[in-house]
Amino acid sequence: MRGAVIYDKGDVRFEKRPEPKVEKPTDAVIRMSATCVCGSDLWSYRGLNPIEKPTPMGHEYCGIVEEVGSEVKSVKPGQFVIGSFFASDNTCPACRAGYQTSCDQFEPISTAQAPRLRVPLADGTLVATPGVPSDEMLPSLLTLSDVMGTGWFAADAAEVKPGKTVVVVGDGAVGLLAVLSARQMGAERIIAMSRHEPRQRLAKEFGATEIVTERGDEGVARIRKLTDGIGADSVLECVGTQESMMQAIRSARAGGHVSYVGVPHGVQLDGKELFFSHVRLHGGPAPVRRFLPQLIDLVWNGTIDPGKVFDLHLPLDQVAEGYRAMHERRAIKAFLQP
Amino acid sequence: MRGAVIYDKGDVRFEKRPEPKVEKPTDAVIRMSATCVCGSDLWSYRGLNPIEKPTPMGHEYCGIVEEVGSEVKSVKPGQFVIGSFFASDNTCPACRAGYQTSCDQFEPISTAQAPRLRVPLADGTLVATPGVPSDEMLPSLLTLSDVMGTGWFAADAAEVKPGKTVVVVGDGAVGLLAVLSARQMGAERIIAMSRHEPRQRLAKEFGATEIVTERGDEGVARIRKLTDGIGADSVLECVGTQESMMQAIRSARAGGHVSYVGVPHGVQLDGKELFFSHVRLHGGPAPVRRFLPQLIDLVWNGTIDPGKVFDLHLPLDQVAEGYRAMHERRAIKAFLQP
Repeated sequence: MRGAVIYDKGDVRFEKRPEPKVEKPTDAVIRMSATCVCGSDLWSYRGLNPIEKPTPMGHEYCGIVEEVGSEVKSVKPGQFVIGSFFASDNTCPACRAGYQTSCDQFEPISTAQAPRLRVPLADGTLVATPGVPSDEMLPSLLTLSDVMGTGWFAADAAEVKPGKTVVVVGDGAVGLLAVLSARQMGAERIIAMSRHEPRQRLAKEFGATEIVTERGDEGVARIRKLTDGIGADSVLECVGTQESMMQAIRSARAGGHVSYVGVPHGVQLDGKELFFSHVRLHGGPAPVRRFLPQLIDLVWNGTIDPGKVFDLHLPLDQVAEGYRAMHERRAIKAFLQP
Repeated sequence: MRGAVIYDKGDVRFEKRPEPKVEKPTDAVIRMSATCVCGSDLWSYRGLNPIEKPTPMGHEYCGIVEEVGSEVKSVKPGQFVIGSFFASDNTCPACRAGYQTSCDQFEPISTAQAPRLRVPLADGTLVATPGVPSDEMLPSLLTLSDVMGTGWFAADAAEVKPGKTVVVVGDGAVGLLAVLSARQMGAERIIAMSRHEPRQRLAKEFGATEIVTERGDEGVARIRKLTDGIGADSVLECVGTQESMMQAIRSARAGGHVSYVGVPHGVQLDGKELFFSHVRLHGGPAPVRRFLPQLIDLVWNGTIDPGKVFDLHLPLDQVAEGYRAMHERRAIKAFLQP
């Protein structure tokens, strides 16, 4: 088969790769129905993560089970399944506490931009949908593998609740789906920080009540003004830079919640500033496995349509164009089908 | 009158100071029944906080109201009152959210090691006890002004609950009272990290179920071992150094809570490590005003006896010896009476 491999900054190729097969009795192999490019893939594409050798890419996936190892019991060939970007056993204490991305046995998925994929720890990692979905439902189901689950975790970790004032920092796909999640959780005000018109439009469609275009200190001042000087109850940081993190912390009220779900790049927090901010901080790699059953229900019954974040649909062999379009901000997120 | 003034590292003097008086209509003046030396006073005494000029000291206090300004309604002369180390209006949004130490009008108390004290924002800051207490009850009531409320906030911010496993980092008076607080909140296991025998004994008396003497990476390894490799549900950081903070973060389980209540000195948190730790972080200057009514009840009805942290009782004019004894670790905390 052929799959995506990154060679260097800006250099993604679609090239021959070994066929995945069941290697351990706990593995499954799936035939990809759809995969996509993640905002976090751009850290490598932009040269901000080092690339030491040609590296296969992709960690968002859904598809039909083709084959399972001898110990796999919860999924079987022919089922449509979705899994997290980290495989997990779903039985260890961290998993049972709902932190499957801190699983004792966790294993990153990293070869999903391909027509077939080996999934380790299949029983813990994969969740089957009630049936094989229509093509129309595929984009929304695919988002549950990472981006939607990550936006949902941002809202969950910041304890968004009915009546609350929420700020979302970042208008990438995760930020936009954090808006959708906050809406589902009943937030009263959802302030999306965005300066890109198409993203502002989607944020509003997903439930944003206000848009703030300022950034940094000006963005903080604007949020303070909009909240009578108090700050927001929950601030969802969906970028991962020093500027976005400080903007989030400074936008929250005393006792308010700040969540952060993008891998921090070069972020250093000053203990004293954090102390006097009085905020509550929680984040990390989103345990999307925790949310999969609930989010599959919400997509399956038509309550949410997170697949709208895909504004570029491409055949898988044009994966390089997907990266390029996202890097150049011509697209929010690229959907890929073999 | 005479009061404590710090001139330099290691140099505290008891010398002539102006008599406090009502300066604003919202002020009260109290006659000190007891005051004390705080662990945080030692940052200055040890030369870790700069001292630019002779500076009056003291922020823990309780006593009898002597005089109130024309706008003060909630306390009156003759009442025994306790207040927080930060004056607060108790009406602004931060106060109403329970974060009185982030009050819009907050004003630090800084001249309490003296026989009389002006308290700003008296209506918001002071809470009267049901009557004038016995001398025996004075030490416990005095702790509510800071150290006990701070230990309580450590447990509250780390969401200590029945059945939980709690670790307390730091065996100063705050750490010891954090142990007592965790016991009150129903923790199942309370692991106190201490290498000083008298403090270990008091920790056990306050409810610690286990003592760990190791520090740093060894301390973390010990906590991991004691919790079957999982980490603690709640870790209460009661020191404020880089080492203690990292020890706390690394001792918590994924999804666990880390609270921190000592002003961080030179603490920098690496965003990426914090992210992958999956902990929840909350702290800041303890809003002890929030807890005063509840804690006064617990002391008044004899449920708790936090005054046991005072293992050195001195007349106020020997305040310098109080600093010295705490600095040299001959005393946990010095109680001072005019």
